[in-house]
Amino acid sequence: MDGATPALLGLIPGEPAGIGPELCAHLAQTTLGNALVAIADGDLLREAAASIGKPLELLPPDASVAGPGQLRLLHRPRRVPGRFGQLDARNSAYVHDSLLEGARLAAAGTLSGLVTGPVHKGILNEAGIAYTGTTELLAAEAGCEVVMMLASAQLRVALATTHLPLRAVPDALTREGLRGTLEILHAALMADFGILAPRIAVLGLNPHAGEGGHLGREEIEVITPVLDALRARGMQLTGPLPADTAFLPQKLQEVDAVLAMYHDQGLPVLKHAGFENAVNITLGLPYVRVAVDHGTALELAGRGEADPSSMILAAKCAIGFAARRARLAPRLLA
Amino acid sequence: MDGATPALLGLIPGEPAGIGPELCAHLAQTTLGNALVAIADGDLLREAAASIGKPLELLPPDASVAGPGQLRLLHRPRRVPGRFGQLDARNSAYVHDSLLEGARLAAAGTLSGLVTGPVHKGILNEAGIAYTGTTELLAAEAGCEVVMMLASAQLRVALATTHLPLRAVPDALTREGLRGTLEILHAALMADFGILAPRIAVLGLNPHAGEGGHLGREEIEVITPVLDALRARGMQLTGPLPADTAFLPQKLQEVDAVLAMYHDQGLPVLKHAGFENAVNITLGLPYVRVAVDHGTALELAGRGEADPSSMILAAKCAIGFAARRARLAPRLLA
Repeated sequence: MDGATPALLGLIPGEPAGIGPELCAHLAQTTLGNALVAIADGDLLREAAASIGKPLELLPPDASVAGPGQLRLLHRPRRVPGRFGQLDARNSAYVHDSLLEGARLAAAGTLSGLVTGPVHKGILNEAGIAYTGTTELLAAEAGCEVVMMLASAQLRVALATTHLPLRAVPDALTREGLRGTLEILHAALMADFGILAPRIAVLGLNPHAGEGGHLGREEIEVITPVLDALRARGMQLTGPLPADTAFLPQKLQEVDAVLAMYHDQGLPVLKHAGFENAVNITLGLPYVRVAVDHGTALELAGRGEADPSSMILAAKCAIGFAARRARLAPRLLA
Repeated sequence: MDGATPALLGLIPGEPAGIGPELCAHLAQTTLGNALVAIADGDLLREAAASIGKPLELLPPDASVAGPGQLRLLHRPRRVPGRFGQLDARNSAYVHDSLLEGARLAAAGTLSGLVTGPVHKGILNEAGIAYTGTTELLAAEAGCEVVMMLASAQLRVALATTHLPLRAVPDALTREGLRGTLEILHAALMADFGILAPRIAVLGLNPHAGEGGHLGREEIEVITPVLDALRARGMQLTGPLPADTAFLPQKLQEVDAVLAMYHDQGLPVLKHAGFENAVNITLGLPYVRVAVDHGTALELAGRGEADPSSMILAAKCAIGFAARRARLAPRLLA
């Protein structure tokens, strides 16, 4: 023991009417729960545990140990009780506040990171909360650029743009933004994933990567200049590549991550190939953040049928990243 | 025998410097070749056969039988000899003319359909030929709307828009166009694929299918009204669906085809999951047309290393469609 406090990560269920609370209750049955403190409504978690027929003892947030069936809790009351499967905009502020509080505690170093469940964008927007995604919320709160990555055991896909109407994507892709994205992705592959010389495949924006300018010019005007500049600094980047053939299995074996230019260019393959074994990682934050890669699944909530695989993988992944950073920290502080 | 001539399909190698010619030579080694007549330069095909170390005897176009190692040929000379792997714009007119001649012979009923190899867009454009894709060329020549579908044994993906810069996609998606696409797709699933009650999954244009209008409005304004109108006519359509989760394996089991709104939304999954076992089918033409699903692979051409799987599957698929249509024809003419 070197005196360091073991990593403690915040666990935020997300939408109370969705499957997030019961996934947290599943997590509390595993040994992973010992590294977590839930930021949530205690009654909600008890109802969720009951819905899956599992025991759940809620402990004070500073409890030294949480065994299987137990979970540390920083109790934050929801505004109104609710039923699983039924959205209620009166609880949107509760969802939003729990994310913000987690973000602030993690930014302050009180928590090593966050593990988050699925949030329902529509109900937050209906309640008048400007919310486009948890990734975007955490980035704004931390005041830094971030990169969204979805990762399975076989494939890591990062996105140059995230939750935008398709119409807005081409203009959102800038040299400055793309350079920042690649720098964050490259640094995270080294620091969090432990890859000494990361190889990144960068997709084009247009079909066939623009086919030499015949199908769009963003590859020539935006992407290639950025790749050339970063290659000159030693990064191993291939591309811009046609998206349709970049995911051929034999090509994926040669790279550590794929950078897609937009949401639906990169995520269908990842989810087709590895759903429920994938997680959503936010790169570039001053703390670790890993989320499930699925939505609120309202139709399943409270029925005990939701598959906790992604939530369990998210916690495992976040705890691993936090441990790696904790090992690095003493060296950086020395 | 009812006196009908067995189906004869045109075989067009595409770019002479690419792998198309040697894929045709591979095809000539199989029994599938007996249903084909190449529209190509004879010397080119002989050079291609030599490069893969296979025999090739070229027969007159009206030869009654072509056995393995033989191929019927409608000789059309290229402009200049060339070397595999080296594009030459002087041969672009040869490539273009061979496609046009095939299209005309098929439209006239002299051929039952076309099997085509990969064409290199860039070199045709450099030669001043306005060409965006063979699918588009055949549609213009036939004067009809068509739909591009890529199909593997596991998955069929059709596209609402094809070879466009991403920036041009949202405005290219119209109610009229989408309705026409779905009608062609639905009819082809019934007539060519023999599916009596086709089920089609239709993707949204925007990430998360627009998330109720928060991430774009094309789902509300264009896609949903078309789906509602066609459902009222009895079509089984689901959607608009978020693209990232529409390709989950369990969801694909419930549909006969997926309609993606644009190229890179639908094709990465298909090629990831089934490359070299996929083909490119043009739906809506008055004749059958099936192509390989890959490019010219200039770096492989003439080295005997190209995999002929997609070409063989394309021929098999086209011959099957032509046979199905030939069985239908006497009933339609009766």
